[in-house]
Amino acid sequence: MAAARVLFAERGFERTTMRAVAEAAEVDPALIHHYFGNKEGLLAAALVLPVDPAAVLAGLEADPDRAGTELVRRIVGVWESQPEVRERMLALLRTGMSHPVATAQVRDVLGSTILSVIARVVRDDNVELRASLVGSQIGGLLLARYVLQVPGVADATPDQLVAAVGPVVQHYLTGPIDVPS
Amino acid sequence: MAAARVLFAERGFERTTMRAVAEAAEVDPALIHHYFGNKEGLLAAALVLPVDPAAVLAGLEADPDRAGTELVRRIVGVWESQPEVRERMLALLRTGMSHPVATAQVRDVLGSTILSVIARVVRDDNVELRASLVGSQIGGLLLARYVLQVPGVADATPDQLVAAVGPVVQHYLTGPIDVPS
Repeated sequence: MAAARVLFAERGFERTTMRAVAEAAEVDPALIHHYFGNKEGLLAAALVLPVDPAAVLAGLEADPDRAGTELVRRIVGVWESQPEVRERMLALLRTGMSHPVATAQVRDVLGSTILSVIARVVRDDNVELRASLVGSQIGGLLLARYVLQVPGVADATPDQLVAAVGPVVQHYLTGPIDVPS
Repeated sequence: MAAARVLFAERGFERTTMRAVAEAAEVDPALIHHYFGNKEGLLAAALVLPVDPAAVLAGLEADPDRAGTELVRRIVGVWESQPEVRERMLALLRTGMSHPVATAQVRDVLGSTILSVIARVVRDDNVELRASLVGSQIGGLLLARYVLQVPGVADATPDQLVAAVGPVVQHYLTGPIDVPS
């Protein structure tokens, strides 16, 4: 599994072969076929999230008007304090950008878990749009801070990020996002 | 140049060789060395932006309180109407995620141009933090809509995106982003 994650992230889905994963893991390729079926099956297993988003975001619905700030605080907290989670998530994002099959699997993994949490806070029918807006801001923030290390968001303290981005996530969760008529 | 862009985006910086670019372009490798020096030089040339951000964002400072909405409208407009710009920018993002050398170059290219535009709208000393927050939201939105095609932001009309994300960019440009004391 560790070998598959590294190869998927480094080479992308298409260029990673079952044989190369077997070589890196020093096992017989037949063993990988036995446990994971095909390359799509291996990918699905490699993309299991290193943390349970439902656990990280538990209880947010208790105070919907502070859910935005609390969500940013908890996610930044996990990324700051758990380097192994950060590395796994970054590998997952790199894999997801490599090939349509990987893109679809990453989208499904992140989408279904995040959607179910956010549905409990949102008060109207726009759950899918609101959840994907939250995801776009959080994903963009994590990429800018930890991958591209853009000056500004890369140097900010966690408290600064929570203060700046919390109200934005709150806006996406419960604020007015409709087209003015 | 076209061959280099494709290979950098598909294989990443480290796995792309001058020889492979020469083969794809059907020229002598010595010619590439002559014009671009080394692989870093070739990368810098490949990362030239397909549009001039200063032109796309010209005049935003005339109405700073509407700059957020106008910025989202113009960027989404370019990505919607110019597929070749979209493809080049996506290749650039993929390349930038592949290797620290490419990451640094992508950050410099995007950072310097965006920073100079945004500095004309921001009214305090927090230009770098504000610009990088804007970049994180816009980058995350473009990735979610055009690469991951996340339901919600992928199905929204351009007007919906402008209505939902415009106030957020405005908040980052001119709103209160400080840590409460």
